[in-house]
Amino acid sequence: MSASPYKQLEQEFKRLHAFRGALSLLRWDAAVMMPRGSADVRGEQLAALETEYHALLTSPRITRLLDRAQANHQGLTDWQVANLREMRRQRDHAIATPVSLISRLAKATSRAEVHWLEARQQGRFELFAPQLEEVVQLVRDKAALLGQALNLAPYDALVDEFSPGITSADIETTFKALSRRLPTLIREAIALQDPHPPLPLNGKFTPAKQRALAMEIMKAVGFPFDRGRLDESEHPFTEGVPGDIRVTTRFDGNDLFSGLLGALHETGHAMYDLGLPQEWRDQPVGRDRGMALEESQSLLLEMLVCRSRAFVRYLTPLLAKHFGLSGPEWDPENLYAHLTRVRRGLIRVDADELTYPLHVLLRYDLEKKLLAGELAVRDLPAAWNAGMEQRLGIRPTSDVEGCLQDIHWAVGSFGYFPSYALGAVIAVQLAESLRSDVTDLDEQLGRGEFGGLFGWLRKHVHGVGARVSIHELLKDATGKPLSAVPFIRYLEGKYLEGAASSAAA
Amino acid sequence: MSASPYKQLEQEFKRLHAFRGALSLLRWDAAVMMPRGSADVRGEQLAALETEYHALLTSPRITRLLDRAQANHQGLTDWQVANLREMRRQRDHAIATPVSLISRLAKATSRAEVHWLEARQQGRFELFAPQLEEVVQLVRDKAALLGQALNLAPYDALVDEFSPGITSADIETTFKALSRRLPTLIREAIALQDPHPPLPLNGKFTPAKQRALAMEIMKAVGFPFDRGRLDESEHPFTEGVPGDIRVTTRFDGNDLFSGLLGALHETGHAMYDLGLPQEWRDQPVGRDRGMALEESQSLLLEMLVCRSRAFVRYLTPLLAKHFGLSGPEWDPENLYAHLTRVRRGLIRVDADELTYPLHVLLRYDLEKKLLAGELAVRDLPAAWNAGMEQRLGIRPTSDVEGCLQDIHWAVGSFGYFPSYALGAVIAVQLAESLRSDVTDLDEQLGRGEFGGLFGWLRKHVHGVGARVSIHELLKDATGKPLSAVPFIRYLEGKYLEGAASSAAA
Repeated sequence: MSASPYKQLEQEFKRLHAFRGALSLLRWDAAVMMPRGSADVRGEQLAALETEYHALLTSPRITRLLDRAQANHQGLTDWQVANLREMRRQRDHAIATPVSLISRLAKATSRAEVHWLEARQQGRFELFAPQLEEVVQLVRDKAALLGQALNLAPYDALVDEFSPGITSADIETTFKALSRRLPTLIREAIALQDPHPPLPLNGKFTPAKQRALAMEIMKAVGFPFDRGRLDESEHPFTEGVPGDIRVTTRFDGNDLFSGLLGALHETGHAMYDLGLPQEWRDQPVGRDRGMALEESQSLLLEMLVCRSRAFVRYLTPLLAKHFGLSGPEWDPENLYAHLTRVRRGLIRVDADELTYPLHVLLRYDLEKKLLAGELAVRDLPAAWNAGMEQRLGIRPTSDVEGCLQDIHWAVGSFGYFPSYALGAVIAVQLAESLRSDVTDLDEQLGRGEFGGLFGWLRKHVHGVGARVSIHELLKDATGKPLSAVPFIRYLEGKYLEGAASSAAA
Repeated sequence: MSASPYKQLEQEFKRLHAFRGALSLLRWDAAVMMPRGSADVRGEQLAALETEYHALLTSPRITRLLDRAQANHQGLTDWQVANLREMRRQRDHAIATPVSLISRLAKATSRAEVHWLEARQQGRFELFAPQLEEVVQLVRDKAALLGQALNLAPYDALVDEFSPGITSADIETTFKALSRRLPTLIREAIALQDPHPPLPLNGKFTPAKQRALAMEIMKAVGFPFDRGRLDESEHPFTEGVPGDIRVTTRFDGNDLFSGLLGALHETGHAMYDLGLPQEWRDQPVGRDRGMALEESQSLLLEMLVCRSRAFVRYLTPLLAKHFGLSGPEWDPENLYAHLTRVRRGLIRVDADELTYPLHVLLRYDLEKKLLAGELAVRDLPAAWNAGMEQRLGIRPTSDVEGCLQDIHWAVGSFGYFPSYALGAVIAVQLAESLRSDVTDLDEQLGRGEFGGLFGWLRKHVHGVGARVSIHELLKDATGKPLSAVPFIRYLEGKYLEGAASSAAA
């Protein structure tokens, strides 16, 4: 007797999972280990594997098996039904875009990436504009085709690739709430902080010692170094699969925190991936529930946990142990002031919790206009600079600090940016419920214990995998639909904490 | 008008080449970077890619195209005809082994490799024995199927995978000549060397400094660090493709030479791969002509070049530069005495030129018996130790110095070992012709110039790729068929050089 259509599909997707893992390792190696001159060879390897992956996923055999399994799904468990739905989702996304378009997009983005680098080095946007124009046009075509196939608006179809279930309506509602409150909140926070600047944290911090500190904390957090690595790369990222997770960061010898927080941000991603349902790890239903939720997990660890007084209590003696630091500038309250300092800056990846969402709102606004044809690529620098001034009150003096700072558009990732700000909002909504369930969370964190934190997250977020939509997951975990209210409340509590007393003083 | 069958085949094999490169990178990572606990995940990735590679290579489309291209091959160049022949060879080898066996073997060897490492660390063969047993059984099945399809004896079929064109008859003839002369030659050489032991080379040589020295010499040799890497691993090896070559070695802080010579041995492999015909680099005819020839290139560099007086002249000032070494023990003649010291040792990779082939003869004997079922895996340690005593007069005190020292059997590479000894024989045969063409070779090497060496090798060996058989290549390059005579003559000249005069004294 041959296996059921469903069981045959599980076999096929197990194979596709192995392909994804191999592709991920090839990308990790390209960023961390590969010699500079080998990019052409790696490009051919990635293209060959991606083409084959696409061919396997869209094969008539998979379509036939999906049809047969769905026509005959009684007897399947909830997880299996959800798995079938996710299989279909992956296949529908893949088949909506013709191979020829994928291949033209791959070539256009690889050209655009080179020109983006060149334009950054020379500070000349016009060196990149024609290639970006080409990418925008191809992404527009892709969005139209995807939208048609998935019955979504074109931009929503792009978002759906990164964060399934998230719509423009979700984004608009959330972003409206943020843009209403954040600008004034930033003003208030800076007004409170400015009279009391923290003592500077000067020193030389060797990468080897920073690495030892990061690894000690990552171990306490639960990162399994027998099934994962920490390395250095130009930009922090997480690659790999739950059985072999590769996290990177970048250590700056003059900055104690940027490398550590980069590593812990990525550890947040890794812990999500590691907490995914083990028995479904090679199946679509065992995957993460999209980039908005991924970002919620990295930001929850980096922003809510690691930039807290509780964590600083745990961190302070570790700094003394690894660097022999002492003196008033290394007191917990001074460290906390550094970790929560609000400043209006031009660079997204260096931004604090309060200003970060505004960087995202600007990009969201501009990428929608670019795709809709309401903004021409040649007018992007002016629109960027005006938007920056309007939102944050500062203006880039060059496009390197402006519209050339992110790689996303060059590589065709339109519809990705919203997940950064949604992730921050979701992180706080989850953390509110977490805190009401784990009442001694801060005591645990202060002792460097992360069991309560990840026990809750595994149960309510990580272990759910892709069994339900992100909206259901959020409702199940917090009792409420997606909302920016907890996020605003949290920021007000954290960044205006001295306001009442200082007004009274 | 669609492309000709031949041109379509070139496209297909270009894709297969990219798959091979990806597989090679996954193996490199497993040995150099991968966390210990991730072997199962990597095993699944390798199995999935190998299965797919196999499926693509044995697809009806390839078979059809091969038939059509061969029926209609007028108008093809010599290289294209040879390429077609090599395509067919690869496909015939692949189709002889069913996918299920390939996949089981991939999983079994990936498990076995982990257990081999564990067994080595703990010095306990029994931790590895069950996994080796599984590998032996699967390789035995594979040899039987391959032999049937290729009309070769099972063991010859395995050899043919690694070293196309090499037969048991070639091996037996050569090995008989070696086992006739080497044991007495070793005795004579040791008797000559023993009264005049070189001054000991004591010191602490940090891996970082050893690495810097190795890299300087590799650069002089011509290794392109913008398209390759040097790393450390348990066992030195070379992986990757000509555009991204990965070489490894193992540095021992108490031994100045083992890590360096390991790196240069592997650099010999890398230089062969890098010298393959560039315009055929992604085609079967652009590949190396098998492992015996590969080993000839690594041994030519390690043994004939780097263990020569000429090379020591170049090396001596580098040792002073990197380690600040001076004194009589660092004089060229004392260094040369170390590099050509003949000792009965237990470890193959540390063996000198004279004893090395006997290590291979032992493994050849044992692996034939394992596959024939004449030796049980559990009896391997005893058989190994007895064989070592009989051939070299010494006996391992632990399996780490015995049958656990090599990775080959763990990863299923049976039929590979003979290529080491054949490689040594071929290296000398090639070097005889090389020296008669490049008459100032030693002067060049003494100045750290490797242009004459690699110019000749590229023309007569590397650049030939797989256009002709190894026997034809050897005939074209040296005017003679494969023979152990030059090898014995070379060893007698090098290791008995003082014999006549010392007898006269």
